[in-house]
Amino acid sequence: QHVPYSPPSYPEEMMLQRSEEFYTLLNQRRSVRFISPKPVPREVIDNVIRTAGTAPSGAHTEPWTFVVVSDPEMKHKIRQVVEEEEEVNYRQRMGDKWVNDLAKFKTNWIKDYLDVAPYLVLIFKQTYGILPNGKKRTHYYNEISVSISCGILLAALQNVGLVTVTSTPLNCGPQLRVLLKRPVNEKLLMLLPVGYPAADATVPDLKRKPLDDIMVRI
Amino acid sequence: QHVPYSPPSYPEEMMLQRSEEFYTLLNQRRSVRFISPKPVPREVIDNVIRTAGTAPSGAHTEPWTFVVVSDPEMKHKIRQVVEEEEEVNYRQRMGDKWVNDLAKFKTNWIKDYLDVAPYLVLIFKQTYGILPNGKKRTHYYNEISVSISCGILLAALQNVGLVTVTSTPLNCGPQLRVLLKRPVNEKLLMLLPVGYPAADATVPDLKRKPLDDIMVRI
Ligand SMILES: Cc1cc2nc3c(=O)[nH]c(=O)nc-3n(C[C@H](O)[C@H](O)[C@H](O)COP(=O)(O)O)c2cc1C
Ligand SMILES: Cc1cc2nc3c(=O)[nH]c(=O)nc-3n(C[C@H](O)[C@H](O)[C@H](O)COP(=O)(O)O)c2cc1C
Repeated sequence: QHVPYSPPSYPEEMMLQRSEEFYTLLNQRRSVRFISPKPVPREVIDNVIRTAGTAPSGAHTEPWTFVVVSDPEMKHKIRQVVEEEEEVNYRQRMGDKWVNDLAKFKTNWIKDYLDVAPYLVLIFKQTYGILPNGKKRTHYYNEISVSISCGILLAALQNVGLVTVTSTPLNCGPQLRVLLKRPVNEKLLMLLPVGYPAADATVPDLKRKPLDDIMVRI
Repeated sequence: QHVPYSPPSYPEEMMLQRSEEFYTLLNQRRSVRFISPKPVPREVIDNVIRTAGTAPSGAHTEPWTFVVVSDPEMKHKIRQVVEEEEEVNYRQRMGDKWVNDLAKFKTNWIKDYLDVAPYLVLIFKQTYGILPNGKKRTHYYNEISVSISCGILLAALQNVGLVTVTSTPLNCGPQLRVLLKRPVNEKLLMLLPVGYPAADATVPDLKRKPLDDIMVRI
């Protein structure tokens, strides 16, 4: 069951131009922690999630579930869980060093965006699957696959002018799984608030490493 | 040191159109194991790696190194390491179940593409960094961050009409790290052969899950 494959191809000059334009677009991506309450068309979010679902995965297990929350009450419950745990994270679990490493981001455990953003996307990894005969199906490299899918999701958001902040809420997974009624084979990997940036949004003044610091030619 | 942020924004109709086009583009991505030896412009690869380097990372640690190999001798040495280990993986380490799960992909331990592809991109995660004072710097969530970056890299390749197969060569990491002279804080996460698809390239006839199987609305 192999089939021929011939994807779109472009002349060299156009490849170069496309590669530059895509870099310029993605290089404008920033983690934004100030999100506007302005509504976002549902179809756009659907397409973004569809796009994330095109990611490769170990043995094509597609081990991802995207829970997209727009209900204000549920968003608020999620905020309560996250802020409660994050306060303990900052005060106790993370330790001085980690908290210090985060100082420049001016982040803390208060997360308005969990109420304000029109959508919260909670990304679960399926640590195993269930076969029709009820047996467990191994999901090879599920965390890597789901993270790759998250990278594609971020590109899709940037492509439509929406923003998010990639977050991994430490210790909130079990409670949020139960709150969202996800099965035990699913584990929370990431929580992304999604929307337009707030009109007065600011971001930490970070620089990215130049190419020569991240690439080695052999 | 926070600065204002206002990224590109589009009217709703254009957002919808852009989201559809990006989905269509990315949905054409497939893992391709038959790669053409046709040379690929170096600048395009540089831009693809630059784009991968725009990914978010835990505490902005940017914990990735992209080793881009075009030297034929080095490619061949990499092939020898990978094939030797992969033969043991298939025959012994992976077990019948895993090998069976892979049967539909018709993959085995022979990997011509490691000689043939114009570029091999070996993605290393930096498990920790070294501070100017010589102390170790923790790289929070380095594997997730590097995998996200890999997702963005895949989108960038697809955008220019190049193909790859995302692979995680089991047990080859330590040998390839030494072969490529990478420091001990770096661990091989992924190996991506990159090029145009071969004229007669085929891919397994897989389907992707529909949106309702991967997304839950609340
Ligand atoms: C983390 C990860 C590891 C993978 N490892 C291999 C591998 O070692 N060899 C291989 O041929 N394909 C590998 N693949 C590719 C998958 O088999 C492929 O993504 C899946 O079958 C879906 O096909 P598609 O990418 O064409 O959509 C891997 C994919 C991921 C995400
Ligand atoms: C795996 C991962 C976890 C992250 N966790 C958090 C988080 O919990 N809270 C937060 O505010 N930012 C989080 N970030 C965002 C990073 O701080 C941000 O990506 C980094 O500072 C670089 O900034 P940029 O995304 O604007 O380029 C996380 C990013 C990644 C990739």
